[in-house]
Amino acid sequence: MSMLPTLLADERVVIAGVADIDATGRDRFAADLGVPAYDRAEDLAANPGVDAVYLATPHALHADQATAALALGTHVLVEKPLSLTVEDCLAVHDASRASGAQVVVGHTHAFDRPVRMIRDIIASGRLGRVAMINSWYYGSFLYRPRRPEELDTARGGGILFNQVPHQVDVVRLLGGGLVRSVRSATFVLDLKRPTEGSHSTFLEFEDGAAASLVYSGYDRFDTDEWHGWIDENGRDRVPEHGAARRALRAAGGQDAEAGLKAARGYRGLPAGPADRSGLHQPHFGVLLVSCEGGDLRAGPDGVILYDDEGVTTVRIPCDGPFPDKSLVIDDLYRVVVLGEPSVHDAAWGAATVEVCRAIQTSAREHREVLTEHQVPVDPARRPPHPAVST
Amino acid sequence: MSMLPTLLADERVVIAGVADIDATGRDRFAADLGVPAYDRAEDLAANPGVDAVYLATPHALHADQATAALALGTHVLVEKPLSLTVEDCLAVHDASRASGAQVVVGHTHAFDRPVRMIRDIIASGRLGRVAMINSWYYGSFLYRPRRPEELDTARGGGILFNQVPHQVDVVRLLGGGLVRSVRSATFVLDLKRPTEGSHSTFLEFEDGAAASLVYSGYDRFDTDEWHGWIDENGRDRVPEHGAARRALRAAGGQDAEAGLKAARGYRGLPAGPADRSGLHQPHFGVLLVSCEGGDLRAGPDGVILYDDEGVTTVRIPCDGPFPDKSLVIDDLYRVVVLGEPSVHDAAWGAATVEVCRAIQTSAREHREVLTEHQVPVDPARRPPHPAVST
Repeated sequence: MSMLPTLLADERVVIAGVADIDATGRDRFAADLGVPAYDRAEDLAANPGVDAVYLATPHALHADQATAALALGTHVLVEKPLSLTVEDCLAVHDASRASGAQVVVGHTHAFDRPVRMIRDIIASGRLGRVAMINSWYYGSFLYRPRRPEELDTARGGGILFNQVPHQVDVVRLLGGGLVRSVRSATFVLDLKRPTEGSHSTFLEFEDGAAASLVYSGYDRFDTDEWHGWIDENGRDRVPEHGAARRALRAAGGQDAEAGLKAARGYRGLPAGPADRSGLHQPHFGVLLVSCEGGDLRAGPDGVILYDDEGVTTVRIPCDGPFPDKSLVIDDLYRVVVLGEPSVHDAAWGAATVEVCRAIQTSAREHREVLTEHQVPVDPARRPPHPAVST
Repeated sequence: MSMLPTLLADERVVIAGVADIDATGRDRFAADLGVPAYDRAEDLAANPGVDAVYLATPHALHADQATAALALGTHVLVEKPLSLTVEDCLAVHDASRASGAQVVVGHTHAFDRPVRMIRDIIASGRLGRVAMINSWYYGSFLYRPRRPEELDTARGGGILFNQVPHQVDVVRLLGGGLVRSVRSATFVLDLKRPTEGSHSTFLEFEDGAAASLVYSGYDRFDTDEWHGWIDENGRDRVPEHGAARRALRAAGGQDAEAGLKAARGYRGLPAGPADRSGLHQPHFGVLLVSCEGGDLRAGPDGVILYDDEGVTTVRIPCDGPFPDKSLVIDDLYRVVVLGEPSVHDAAWGAATVEVCRAIQTSAREHREVLTEHQVPVDPARRPPHPAVST
């Protein structure tokens, strides 16, 4: 539902079919768009009219479904995380290299236009080297309606596989990709929702830049307070604290929560916002990057630059779909039509999962963890993958 | 100058003399207050009418001056850091134990009333255990007028010995005191001011709580933007970025800077703010503590509590001297008159310096550093010092 407005709005995209084991939303979607419906993702991928499949399935299914599609020569857009283990991610990377079909892992907030503009300013060199990247997010993640597996870390639940990948993808894109060292603490603070809900993490990159990642999904303090009370998608919101927790409490028990969650599935084509005046850039909490020559911040309406001349905002127009994930389609188009690589390919997705897993290991073992599978931002500068299955 | 309003306003304090090798401000101060002036701190400490000396001397002098005063049976209030090395700090601790005279290390922002209130709420247990402590400060430290040694790390310059001790003292007070592990990156981003000006640090406490400390003194982004544009001392300020850098540039070269710095010395008794309406609590950037049962934030006018009921501010009256450092005098009074221990004694000061040095080591060697000299908040629960000189 979150990707659909972008898919429908983009002229480069033709939706050619839908697959789901649950017929309810699937058949309505197929009827609304006049496309075939399938039980199995593999059958959708095998349709010769399909260039690429978009996998928005539970995380644990990603690797097998992606591998099956790639084996058919079908490109894959897959929601983060690419998979739950680094090994499975690397297997997808092997499958991609073996078949020639490619993978784009997204959406993540690394596709937000302000993040891309910050990357471009860094790449221009005019602010010198990057020193510190700060990604700080306090929100309500843990109290939005969840299916049981979304609250079970072993099945890919909690922030480690759902929220932290946004932070890791963003700071890796801005820091050059090559995380060297990870030190972290994670916390399970509500035993009724027994999965990681907060973390505090230090990352060091190969070139010495550092990132501070802090996240809390416990719906108390909210970093939107420092972001003009604009929500993650970029829409003006009510300035209030604890609303998600109160709504969940008012709904009642676990059955009611399952109902609330199901109601977020497909219920007809989105109409789009009637009033665009309250729309801004999407964001993922506070993102503040300190370079030698200035600080850069992802702001509600563009990039805020604090340099020797004071403070200026480089505005970014807000004229796309809502929520705007069209830069994901740019990458998909590059892969499918132009035959060019995506930054967010399977090797990149594996490296992001590696950092998420290193966060988990560092927290559990109370020690620094070094990485082994990082790749730089530029796909052309990535070393050949050492372990292609033959 | 910063401590003087508090010393003059507090009825428990009688200023009995002044010592400085530079006669300019010293003699004017002695004349204004009708007290004797000395060249040497030791002579001031030896005055039998002096219960305690307040050392506001360069950091590298602290240990010898403190030790000399303690040997005379004179208590010591000493500005942070207690000394530049852990060894020197522990020597002061030995001297204190040998003489029975005591040490209070302060002021630091751990003496701010909102910080103390947060500690009291944590200690009450009603919010459960502490998970994450965040101390984030972006300001203009590096571009305020400085003497050359203040920009030389080897002589105690830069943020590591002047700003980071505030952060470490605050988070140690709130986290229980016992830092176990330190992982950090520090940065020198302006070669004209060649000392550490920013850092990003992860701390883990013995009980598993974690702290994120981030600081930048490069006068670009400013966390006062998230704190109602109230300055560190608690006064309303102009909302602007880069003012310190521009003022320094306008002043000209190093001689002009030395003049600006000297002008901050003693120039007569402070009058106090004519208008108290713009006064709030002092702060040190953003301080946000996440417990099981809620988040606590040091706000401009008290402690902001985000819990199951939403958000409330526990207000703290702002009716003391300006700037208000009177809780330092509470500790000094406890030591001198009541004969009770201070949390901020030499062992505490040594532990804070140990963390600052571990930050430096972690950054230089790109690795996690474990600590050896930490002490808990409660002085009664501290183990006997293992190395008292006899």
